[in-house]
Amino acid sequence: MRPPRRERRLNETREAAGNGLLDRRAFLAESAGALATGAFMAFAPGEAGAAGPPETPTEMKVSGAPLSAYGAPATFEREVTRTLIRSQPGTTGAGASRTPLEALEGIITPSGLHFERHHNGVPAIDPAQHQLLIHGMVARPLIFTVASLLRYPMVSRIHFLECSGNSGVMYGATPPALTCGQTHGLVSCSEWTGVPLRLLLAEASADSRAEWILAEGADAAAMSRSVPMAKAMDDAMLALYQNGERLRPENGYPVRLFLPGYEGNMSVKWLRRIKVTDTPTMTKDETSKYTDLQADGKALMFTYPMEVKSVITRPAPGLRMTGPGLYELSGIAWSGRGKIRKVEVSADSGRTWAEAALSAPVLAYALARFRIPWKWNGAATVLKSRATDDAGRVQPTRDELIAQHGANVIYHYHAIQAWRVESSGEVKNVYA
Amino acid sequence: MRPPRRERRLNETREAAGNGLLDRRAFLAESAGALATGAFMAFAPGEAGAAGPPETPTEMKVSGAPLSAYGAPATFEREVTRTLIRSQPGTTGAGASRTPLEALEGIITPSGLHFERHHNGVPAIDPAQHQLLIHGMVARPLIFTVASLLRYPMVSRIHFLECSGNSGVMYGATPPALTCGQTHGLVSCSEWTGVPLRLLLAEASADSRAEWILAEGADAAAMSRSVPMAKAMDDAMLALYQNGERLRPENGYPVRLFLPGYEGNMSVKWLRRIKVTDTPTMTKDETSKYTDLQADGKALMFTYPMEVKSVITRPAPGLRMTGPGLYELSGIAWSGRGKIRKVEVSADSGRTWAEAALSAPVLAYALARFRIPWKWNGAATVLKSRATDDAGRVQPTRDELIAQHGANVIYHYHAIQAWRVESSGEVKNVYA
Repeated sequence: MRPPRRERRLNETREAAGNGLLDRRAFLAESAGALATGAFMAFAPGEAGAAGPPETPTEMKVSGAPLSAYGAPATFEREVTRTLIRSQPGTTGAGASRTPLEALEGIITPSGLHFERHHNGVPAIDPAQHQLLIHGMVARPLIFTVASLLRYPMVSRIHFLECSGNSGVMYGATPPALTCGQTHGLVSCSEWTGVPLRLLLAEASADSRAEWILAEGADAAAMSRSVPMAKAMDDAMLALYQNGERLRPENGYPVRLFLPGYEGNMSVKWLRRIKVTDTPTMTKDETSKYTDLQADGKALMFTYPMEVKSVITRPAPGLRMTGPGLYELSGIAWSGRGKIRKVEVSADSGRTWAEAALSAPVLAYALARFRIPWKWNGAATVLKSRATDDAGRVQPTRDELIAQHGANVIYHYHAIQAWRVESSGEVKNVYA
Repeated sequence: MRPPRRERRLNETREAAGNGLLDRRAFLAESAGALATGAFMAFAPGEAGAAGPPETPTEMKVSGAPLSAYGAPATFEREVTRTLIRSQPGTTGAGASRTPLEALEGIITPSGLHFERHHNGVPAIDPAQHQLLIHGMVARPLIFTVASLLRYPMVSRIHFLECSGNSGVMYGATPPALTCGQTHGLVSCSEWTGVPLRLLLAEASADSRAEWILAEGADAAAMSRSVPMAKAMDDAMLALYQNGERLRPENGYPVRLFLPGYEGNMSVKWLRRIKVTDTPTMTKDETSKYTDLQADGKALMFTYPMEVKSVITRPAPGLRMTGPGLYELSGIAWSGRGKIRKVEVSADSGRTWAEAALSAPVLAYALARFRIPWKWNGAATVLKSRATDDAGRVQPTRDELIAQHGANVIYHYHAIQAWRVESSGEVKNVYA
């Protein structure tokens, strides 16, 4: 007996890799074939069915809430928050909070959920009082007010920011029993607008022999990092706006340095000082921390760019599968070396791979959103994603990463992530 | 006597149009020449000067504020809010609030400042209870829960949304004494993520002879609009996420229709019903309002796409110029017909025009950010911007727009905006 027409169409959809991964183009606009029938019925078994109009809900019988001066998320979403993980017990402001990646979609992170990493809390800086000094190897030391910075030419760019310690827990001997965001949520992505740093360095007539700058924050930790002059003159900006509005306090209000692709701590927040130098300053923040201790006991310093990386955010720990059928796998990929070229996904623990669709626009130093349809047969399996950037760099396996750098390092973890999907629908972090 | 080197460099910068408009490339990355000296010193006269390090601010001497689960803007930005303009005195939830465009930069509008337009307030909808019915000319009427919609394939796109009544006050006999955002702030731009509507229509096996759909909201106004099937099958989506997180209540939580480029009211919020039909339904919302009354007494119906438009947001009413010197003019342009091709700016009331730089990426049905440097001589003058889209449509003058449509219409105002800059630095809305 022939299967019903709907099931035939579904079965005709080309399998792109093992264990049910379908062609990424199967449900895109150009795929007119899939539109002719209810091919997606399998997406919501038992949840969609023939019926008359739903009853008129209560909300339609009473006037709704008034307009508001500044909006907030729905109360029903109150559990979608940053996860606070303090690194210094007993302090209020030192630590990190993580973006709930598994609850988000697209590439923009709402500013309220952008990850935080503070070394001594969030200073409350009056922009009318704040000053930025540029000095050192310059012909003309300058002090800028925020008002003067706001008069300079600006650029806007959508860029990710990732803490070098993101996913560091994955170096541990056992896979963490955390949500996706709790493990990988020290990465976020915003539209940043600000003044190219090279304009201000030119204004101060920086010495052409200078090879470095020092950037210092106005927080109680005086967070300080050395930055190569080449980066400062290339795409570094003094960011004043985040996602359209002025910076949020926890992201450096009123002004931060922003270094596209570099580890997050170098994009110094609450920026108060730039010193032009001929050598790196060797600050506490680049000697006592933010160095990568290797297996042989040596430490790598000045490991700036974040490496190519990806993670499936749906499904992921913190979410559940709701029975066999068609799903869309969705995730994010990024590289501190440039643009994402492709993301491959495996539904059979890495034996076979299919290329996912990338949502346009795919931008340099920005999150890229990838998606691919998957017909889950209900059996336990392992999902993986593997990103390649336009420099040709490919995410390593966890074993490869540890073989290269050892497991003493706590920074720059970027290996392929494996999520085990149990037949119950539970999703777990595994080393596989 | 030769001018000092810095002034020479500035004078050498090519003037691109009358009254001080400079070449848009003058300060971009590719213009290495401008970097060699402090060409921008004129930007902040008296505000930047040689000095030693600023005093250590108080913020550096005490631990800062703790991490937070969901962030908020700096208290120093508390005046950057939506402006509430109620259209129905005595009601709490009918009216509109406007985005403070002159306080924003880039192309993303933070969701808390996205404009609102409600016809009977904001319903508080429990996503676990909400249902979406698809019925009418379909082989299989379906009811979708939000949970089932979340399993469907999604797309993410950055799109503007503009109320058809935006800038309507500009049809009046005298120019409004309002800020830029109060006049033009019924436009905002977000990254929207959701399910292509055509997938759900296919799921329901919509009749291929159907030419229209009806979309109905679950608010107390039962906001309802007819949408051509061609648009529904093209790029219409059921939006579930806005700027990464789930929709805000005032933007349709838990699900809204989104029609790229079309007037905002058609992107029906709190979507509860789609009926597939052979003709438009002629709802109250498309007969008693949202029609364009012409000078001859006839009214245009179904005027969907928002027309090509632009506005300079810096400087603009609500901001002040701070004395003669170099400025960057910054603004937004958009078109409901596609992408922005170019924006021209005039600093002499439209006698001469120079092309502004567009910030990448320039996306279809999205805000485009334009910028151009301007050397203001301190004399009163009039600034204008004029956008052209990739369909070749050019913004008309106000006189041309009124000659074509009359001044009875209150929708679809998109004429060239003139800002008068007084020698005092004040910026005013003028008809010029």
